[in-house]
Amino acid sequence: MTDLVAQTNEALAAGAPALAACLSPLGRRLAFPPDIPFQAAQARGKAFNATIGQITDGSGRALPLSAIAGGLSGLAEVDRNRALLYAPVEGIAELRERWRAWQRARMPAALVARAPELPSSLPIVVDGLTHGLAIVADLFGADDRPLVVPRPFWGNYRQTFTTRTGSPVLSAPAYVDGRFDPLAWERALAGESASSPAIALVNSPSNPGGYTPNAAERSELLASLLRIADRRPLVVLCDDAYAGLVFDEAPAASIFWDLVAAKHPRLVPVKVDGATKELLYFGGRIGFVTFAVEPGTPAHDAIESKVKCLVRAVVGSPVATSEVLMLQALRDLPTAEAEIAATRELLAGRWRALTAALGATDRALLRPLPCNSGCFSLVELPEELGITAEQVRQHLLAHHDVGIVSIQPRFVRIAFCSVAEAAIPELVRRLELGVRELAAAAKSS
Amino acid sequence: MTDLVAQTNEALAAGAPALAACLSPLGRRLAFPPDIPFQAAQARGKAFNATIGQITDGSGRALPLSAIAGGLSGLAEVDRNRALLYAPVEGIAELRERWRAWQRARMPAALVARAPELPSSLPIVVDGLTHGLAIVADLFGADDRPLVVPRPFWGNYRQTFTTRTGSPVLSAPAYVDGRFDPLAWERALAGESASSPAIALVNSPSNPGGYTPNAAERSELLASLLRIADRRPLVVLCDDAYAGLVFDEAPAASIFWDLVAAKHPRLVPVKVDGATKELLYFGGRIGFVTFAVEPGTPAHDAIESKVKCLVRAVVGSPVATSEVLMLQALRDLPTAEAEIAATRELLAGRWRALTAALGATDRALLRPLPCNSGCFSLVELPEELGITAEQVRQHLLAHHDVGIVSIQPRFVRIAFCSVAEAAIPELVRRLELGVRELAAAAKSS
Repeated sequence: MTDLVAQTNEALAAGAPALAACLSPLGRRLAFPPDIPFQAAQARGKAFNATIGQITDGSGRALPLSAIAGGLSGLAEVDRNRALLYAPVEGIAELRERWRAWQRARMPAALVARAPELPSSLPIVVDGLTHGLAIVADLFGADDRPLVVPRPFWGNYRQTFTTRTGSPVLSAPAYVDGRFDPLAWERALAGESASSPAIALVNSPSNPGGYTPNAAERSELLASLLRIADRRPLVVLCDDAYAGLVFDEAPAASIFWDLVAAKHPRLVPVKVDGATKELLYFGGRIGFVTFAVEPGTPAHDAIESKVKCLVRAVVGSPVATSEVLMLQALRDLPTAEAEIAATRELLAGRWRALTAALGATDRALLRPLPCNSGCFSLVELPEELGITAEQVRQHLLAHHDVGIVSIQPRFVRIAFCSVAEAAIPELVRRLELGVRELAAAAKSS
Repeated sequence: MTDLVAQTNEALAAGAPALAACLSPLGRRLAFPPDIPFQAAQARGKAFNATIGQITDGSGRALPLSAIAGGLSGLAEVDRNRALLYAPVEGIAELRERWRAWQRARMPAALVARAPELPSSLPIVVDGLTHGLAIVADLFGADDRPLVVPRPFWGNYRQTFTTRTGSPVLSAPAYVDGRFDPLAWERALAGESASSPAIALVNSPSNPGGYTPNAAERSELLASLLRIADRRPLVVLCDDAYAGLVFDEAPAASIFWDLVAAKHPRLVPVKVDGATKELLYFGGRIGFVTFAVEPGTPAHDAIESKVKCLVRAVVGSPVATSEVLMLQALRDLPTAEAEIAATRELLAGRWRALTAALGATDRALLRPLPCNSGCFSLVELPEELGITAEQVRQHLLAHHDVGIVSIQPRFVRIAFCSVAEAAIPELVRRLELGVRELAAAAKSS
């Protein structure tokens, strides 16, 4: 271990001991090395700066191909230039500051009075939400550190954590008797005697569930996570991909803030969020990783150093073009927020149409699970039908011109975020019809 | 191991046995799962497509924030839409086809007649060149598989390979008696008795060296790599980041093609290249990973499946915005190629100015290493001066308003790609002056 790595680990042990205790072997090895980006940062502003391997006019301006620059002609020259050149490894400073303000403006109402005492780091820019999850997996995941996530869950968690880092998935049903179970994480760990760190993944609004806990469930969930942390070190990874898309009275704020406020000595809250859904920018791949550590502290710089080392090792630096485009929106918040609210209303209309259409279907064929948020709705097929969700998916593709996602063993996910409200009743009619046909065929065979 | 992973490994063992034999434990575990992107691909074009978690108008069009779309107003509507939505995990098909044509148009002249028999895969789009390197590291790297790379080398190779995968670095001097040594890789492995796969990294034009082997050296290098592969399975990773930027008579084509043509039964050529320098698009983060496997074969789909699994697990999907912007340039090749040639000429002017200025310095203070290409030039400090490159860097920053990069123990890297030609003589004057001052202080102390 180099001196730099040792110093980084010591700064974390002193300033963020719960986090330091949860680091994986890879996480412990990381520190941003004092090589080219570090030396380039020191050389900024020098009369003769020969540190950076990007081709410029000699005064820091890009020399782009006209076709690429032309696509960005809607940007002011200074921004277009930034969009064409490397971004800093940690992301563009203005974007990090503005996103931190965006995050903190969305704290739970009950915590706003306590805002000054709730630390949150300058978000580190990454290449989309999944990249944020992969960084958390690398920092904390390993064979002996389970990923705890209720099922059904987004399948890619398995690739990001288990395939890459070896973290086994521990799970329990997210829904019991057709209702969300806020104790699912604790149940998934029941009977585990290990004292190694665990990673609890909280995805709210959820994918594929489209569910956000109501106030009572949220309290139960928080208390349950704290009980887990009483027993073993616990990273709580808040996958806030769908933040803000809540269509009923459930509290929309991230539980990251409640976990920060709880100040449990063995619980490490981490927030992963980004522009993909929150700013409706799917093709840009901008995500952020945020820790409960205040800027300006040695622990802040130490965890930032570890994440920057991973960003540099895996993708070099985050996408400058998308960062600059995202900044355009964040600089005019009233317009962006009004447009986001309008899209939320559009989705709410689709959600209401879907809820109504599913509500009118035959419970012997389709069992809709609770859905109040996000982009998806989940339907369970009754076990007694004797058919799988994958059979339904194939049948709908082949015979009803309908694409849905099947999730083992008997869940169907409907992405209402990409279907027009007017099309939803017919979509549900075909789904019900397809299930009815398959169930009849299964019964007669 | 799932059936899918087993089938993928079998397809590789049958169609690309050398590659299959080099896979790391992680590489062997990978296969793109038949979950959401797979199911969404099957649902494309259905009347009712409720598979995809992106928010659209219900007919596949993005609903962007006006500020973000406005930044892309230079794009035609259909392209702007693609820039705002998710790209396929493997990248946009048109971009992959056009980049493959770009690559194959740059084969060595001597091999063009053999082009039909030289297989190359559809390049897989990744988030920049480093991401391509990280994918190769994950596919092939592990504790017992050395990364073989002459020194000095780009420091980030160490993070990408060693820190993450455990691959130890084996090295030998890139320059002997002030000349490039084409046998450096073989020398780095001399005395190794291990029979595990090794990964030879060939970076040409090089960073930090700015060197491309001449025709004779290139032949020696190729023969040397083939000799290594006679002894142990060998991945040759061609890091072609600076492809095309050659300023003298040295052959500019990637040695990837020579390695493909050699058809050695234990040598696995992999090409990593991209838009960053080749299309002068630093902020876009578009790279490609290419294998010596022909599209349409089971082995092609198997290695693509493994890489897609990693892309999805680590970054979700590559940046659509940058892919679409890059396409604008590739659709009008004559313009793009003329602009690239003009920038190459600009860099050639700086390179000539730097070569002349360094040539006129005192050999007792500065020993320029051979440089004929790329973005950088490397200067060695004579050992007898008793000073380190890091001391020189700090001294130039503090007293001469000059930023350069120091590389242990006694190398200084000058990025002439970002310094105006007119500034180069003064930059070199200050470098020489700074070294003279430090050397005098070292002598008198």
